[in-house]
Amino acid sequence: MKQPVYLDNAATTALDPEVLESMLPYMTQHFGNPSSSYSLGRVTKSAIEAARKTVAQILSVKPSTLIFTSGGTEGNNMAIAMAVNELGCKHIITSPIEHHAVLHTVEHYAHSKNLTFSYVKLTATGEVDYENLEAQLVNQSKQGKKCLVSLMHANNELGSLLDIALAGKLCRENNALFHADCVQTIGHYPIDLKACGVHFATAAGHKFHGPKGTGLLYVSDEVKAYPLIFGGGQERKLRAGTENVYGIVGFAKALELATAGYDSDSKYITELNHFMRTQLKLAVPGVSFNNPANSLYTVLSVCFPVDSQSDYLVTLFDMKGICVSGGSACSSGDGGSHVMKAIGKAKSCATLRFSFSKHTTREEIVEAVEVAASIFQNKEISIA
Amino acid sequence: MKQPVYLDNAATTALDPEVLESMLPYMTQHFGNPSSSYSLGRVTKSAIEAARKTVAQILSVKPSTLIFTSGGTEGNNMAIAMAVNELGCKHIITSPIEHHAVLHTVEHYAHSKNLTFSYVKLTATGEVDYENLEAQLVNQSKQGKKCLVSLMHANNELGSLLDIALAGKLCRENNALFHADCVQTIGHYPIDLKACGVHFATAAGHKFHGPKGTGLLYVSDEVKAYPLIFGGGQERKLRAGTENVYGIVGFAKALELATAGYDSDSKYITELNHFMRTQLKLAVPGVSFNNPANSLYTVLSVCFPVDSQSDYLVTLFDMKGICVSGGSACSSGDGGSHVMKAIGKAKSCATLRFSFSKHTTREEIVEAVEVAASIFQNKEISIA
Repeated sequence: MKQPVYLDNAATTALDPEVLESMLPYMTQHFGNPSSSYSLGRVTKSAIEAARKTVAQILSVKPSTLIFTSGGTEGNNMAIAMAVNELGCKHIITSPIEHHAVLHTVEHYAHSKNLTFSYVKLTATGEVDYENLEAQLVNQSKQGKKCLVSLMHANNELGSLLDIALAGKLCRENNALFHADCVQTIGHYPIDLKACGVHFATAAGHKFHGPKGTGLLYVSDEVKAYPLIFGGGQERKLRAGTENVYGIVGFAKALELATAGYDSDSKYITELNHFMRTQLKLAVPGVSFNNPANSLYTVLSVCFPVDSQSDYLVTLFDMKGICVSGGSACSSGDGGSHVMKAIGKAKSCATLRFSFSKHTTREEIVEAVEVAASIFQNKEISIA
Repeated sequence: MKQPVYLDNAATTALDPEVLESMLPYMTQHFGNPSSSYSLGRVTKSAIEAARKTVAQILSVKPSTLIFTSGGTEGNNMAIAMAVNELGCKHIITSPIEHHAVLHTVEHYAHSKNLTFSYVKLTATGEVDYENLEAQLVNQSKQGKKCLVSLMHANNELGSLLDIALAGKLCRENNALFHADCVQTIGHYPIDLKACGVHFATAAGHKFHGPKGTGLLYVSDEVKAYPLIFGGGQERKLRAGTENVYGIVGFAKALELATAGYDSDSKYITELNHFMRTQLKLAVPGVSFNNPANSLYTVLSVCFPVDSQSDYLVTLFDMKGICVSGGSACSSGDGGSHVMKAIGKAKSCATLRFSFSKHTTREEIVEAVEVAASIFQNKEISIA
């Protein structure tokens, strides 16, 4: 059977064969518990620390600021929990288009700890209104409430980008802690976390051809870090539990490969993205795009002019061998995208997110555009 | 270089090649996000649900009561957090010889939520005094405080076993919730969780030749479950984050293999354990054993009659190619075993834990005993 055309790399990516190769020794001969002091344990402990050093160099931070987690979601939870439970944050500023790993965590702690939270104002294209962010920070500061700002570096559905350095600057000027959810950008951009001024940043291995079940939380050494999961002394007592050694090794290898290939891969993917945009315009009358001008190069958010649910479109594409999504995989089946609702796009059209990787080919884009054309030309779906 | 003799299977086990084989398709072609509705996502979603069904059948529970986690530690944290944050538990009864994943979690929540906790009385060999457990339950119940009892099914250092059905019965009679840390027993014994009367039970894949970074939390359908990690709707909204698909597949495969091989493997390992005990008695004058009569067959806790730290002995064995531990790997380097201290053994001798698997050979035991004999006969360490 022909492998489907996979255009949902913002949901997850295929594990790079070279990454798998780096992991396999730790799934076979090097199986010791990294906390064990004998030879077999020292080998795996060294592998973890080498991985941490690799990642630290790439992100321009000290190895001691990095905590390996089970994924981006755990990292987001840990940062928010730490800020409100231990670091004195009494108000959270976030946005309505964050990933649920942030939104639902904020809601949980706001409720259970009786905190307040607010949403920053967004532009029509889902970008942060920095004047509003600053006004909210100043206002909370006046009330004597220390803030946590939690915003994503790139929106996973729209591709809108945060000016992370500007947001960091505003936070620092107002004594707020700043958490950047970098799940869609670490591994896709060169990022100097130290220079960004973030206090917390999160990443997930499976978004850049690394293994599922692996993630990273950066905690600036300006703040004291606290665990979310308690137990053994792993990760400098900040994340208990026997380490997922092969996962950590794979995470670092994937980030290393992504960084080494950044210049050519990002250029190639950007061109694919533009190519698809151009081809779709020709093939589907009335199509438009949700991405702001400066947006994540891996994502193309397409607005199809039909009076239909995105889910139905996803199924039509799937039946023709194209894997594409209506929004975040994590909230699929949840009654439509909260992101599109938040920017008022939910009703005007059916949005599909096409997202690319270095493995995506031009032929696959052509195939997907042909499928789109056939769906609309054959009136498999009624034009609004 | 010769591979060391690995006698620390209670710390972690080698991944079974057959388990790795089951995982590989989900690290290569089947990489879709299980939350995605298209074909590539349905394949991985089905794999997770098939894994859940396999595990549920083995543990005699409904699939809907099982939550896949990133390990035993996360499961223990989740059970305790749920009980005290959401299920009304105001007092925790545990023991001083629990794993730190329980002890430190109990301490954290007791402190942050202003709860009380107490330790159940233990026998000299580290077994629970059930009369004391009952008395504490009755006492707390009289004060109107709902209890969580968190006890491990088998102690990871001593091998002492809990009568899980009796503890479950006492908890139920006193309206307490019961969490059994089964990290050392699920995959090593046939366990009918439903019949045990537990409300929560935890397991870790890497303890029975499954993958690191995988675990399980059972939550009885008599109680309403709550998440510890918030975000997407994975695991029926109880554990957010893109699933570690290959890990989950490997966990189930490892449990399946462990269960299928239980009769012969447990018989074989029990014989090895007895063999080592007999041989050590002959080889090292004054040696004794910490295991109670009825104890975990995978663990032999040996008391060497020397006035020395266990850590030093571990190093001596390591230098001669034997991997063995002074206690839990998770607390190695922490200044000695809290378990041995709790049962008053810390000062009387240097304890080493030898722990076995189906892959351990009689020749390896002979080698380890010879190393022990040489260490003591050559007076590399002074006899107390």
